[in-house]
Amino acid sequence: MNIVLIGAGNVATQLGLALQTAGFRIVQVYSRTENAATLLSSRLQTSYTTDIRKINPDAELYIFSVKDDAILPVLQQMQPVQGLCAHTAGSVPADIFRPYTRRYGVFYPLQTFSKEKNVSFEHIPVLYEANNEEDENLLRKIAGKLSDTCLCVDSEKRKYIHLAAAFACNFTNYMYTLAAGILEEQDIPRQLLFPLIEETASKVRTLHPREAQTGPAIRHDTKTMRKHLELLSDESKRKIYEVISNSIIGN
Amino acid sequence: MNIVLIGAGNVATQLGLALQTAGFRIVQVYSRTENAATLLSSRLQTSYTTDIRKINPDAELYIFSVKDDAILPVLQQMQPVQGLCAHTAGSVPADIFRPYTRRYGVFYPLQTFSKEKNVSFEHIPVLYEANNEEDENLLRKIAGKLSDTCLCVDSEKRKYIHLAAAFACNFTNYMYTLAAGILEEQDIPRQLLFPLIEETASKVRTLHPREAQTGPAIRHDTKTMRKHLELLSDESKRKIYEVISNSIIGN
Repeated sequence: MNIVLIGAGNVATQLGLALQTAGFRIVQVYSRTENAATLLSSRLQTSYTTDIRKINPDAELYIFSVKDDAILPVLQQMQPVQGLCAHTAGSVPADIFRPYTRRYGVFYPLQTFSKEKNVSFEHIPVLYEANNEEDENLLRKIAGKLSDTCLCVDSEKRKYIHLAAAFACNFTNYMYTLAAGILEEQDIPRQLLFPLIEETASKVRTLHPREAQTGPAIRHDTKTMRKHLELLSDESKRKIYEVISNSIIGN
Repeated sequence: MNIVLIGAGNVATQLGLALQTAGFRIVQVYSRTENAATLLSSRLQTSYTTDIRKINPDAELYIFSVKDDAILPVLQQMQPVQGLCAHTAGSVPADIFRPYTRRYGVFYPLQTFSKEKNVSFEHIPVLYEANNEEDENLLRKIAGKLSDTCLCVDSEKRKYIHLAAAFACNFTNYMYTLAAGILEEQDIPRQLLFPLIEETASKVRTLHPREAQTGPAIRHDTKTMRKHLELLSDESKRKIYEVISNSIIGN
């Protein structure tokens, strides 16, 4: 199967590598930015273009991994294609494609990706959907070559999964950033927190996070919370500390 | 070495089990609550008391793993002891003990503990300090039997480590709780998030969390953030979403 990757960011990079490893052929990479395009196409040893009009019109699958707002502008400027168009955007409905192309869908790997850190897709949930049964089967087959967890999920449900991922990943990672900042201001290596971070994450497999909650807020230990607030160097961090603690207390 | 555990909560339980496995002798468990006392003493196959006056006065080490505010009241009601008194409270200075006993210190394992989930202490940082060199050596030796990461850290620095842990563990776990709640409201199993949670945590070893940040806020994708806010069912979650996103944007 010939695939064109539209985009060369974090998702396009890791998904492209995984697809290639699974035996699919990435025939072209498109990116607006020359740098990203050359970088990914050389990692995939394939061709690239930065010109939307030169996107190969004969591929069987087009994977759109660009910013949400760029999906349609790119599609509208491409030559018309017969292949299946699928985007990887968690919170964008599949039918965004409808007015512009006949075969469309979504191929959303529920994971956080960075260009520099390769990941195994083996257990990553791949959420797919398509506007017709045949293409849904096609996406399921592709997903099945990448991962042991493939789910057909409609756009409505996927929105909530994407929202949950913002908490479980994006906000969680930001908590790590704040924690690292607090230590680094005191010249303490952030590595000290690694076992704690890992145990907190691994606990979700054995305990519901509601049961695993520890710390001053769940104990209603206002004295410690006051001390913590005094140590925080800026208003925005104090605000975060207060809002989360109050929610834990009230939950 | 004979040790008395003051407290039978999460920390006392896991630390007690780890000390016993490492060959130390827990001679007694004290807890205010009969239930907790019997539970832990039976796991450790040792005796217990719920009467402060009956705490064994002849142990070599007393580990205080009670609520911060209970440390002194317990110490003041105990019979006077010659043994070393050490608490496990991250944000309580060592010299809280000073007016009441001659040998004191802190033995703080930087980890999140639950009674029901046993942990290996092997890589858990154990932060210790004492008011005299001999006892500092003693605590270092004990820590060294439990873990490969033992650090002598003063009370001032430990406060910041405890604060960082609130972000890296307590608040992170609450993000998991919120994410699980969002899925459960939609009848989607929270297990779907496990690979994402684990990858987010494991990434801190290869990338600084500042470099690993993904999601709508770091992309300044206000459209997706607006969509997310519309999906959130209550005010307190919307507040958390906004405060954290604004901080990511401004960081």
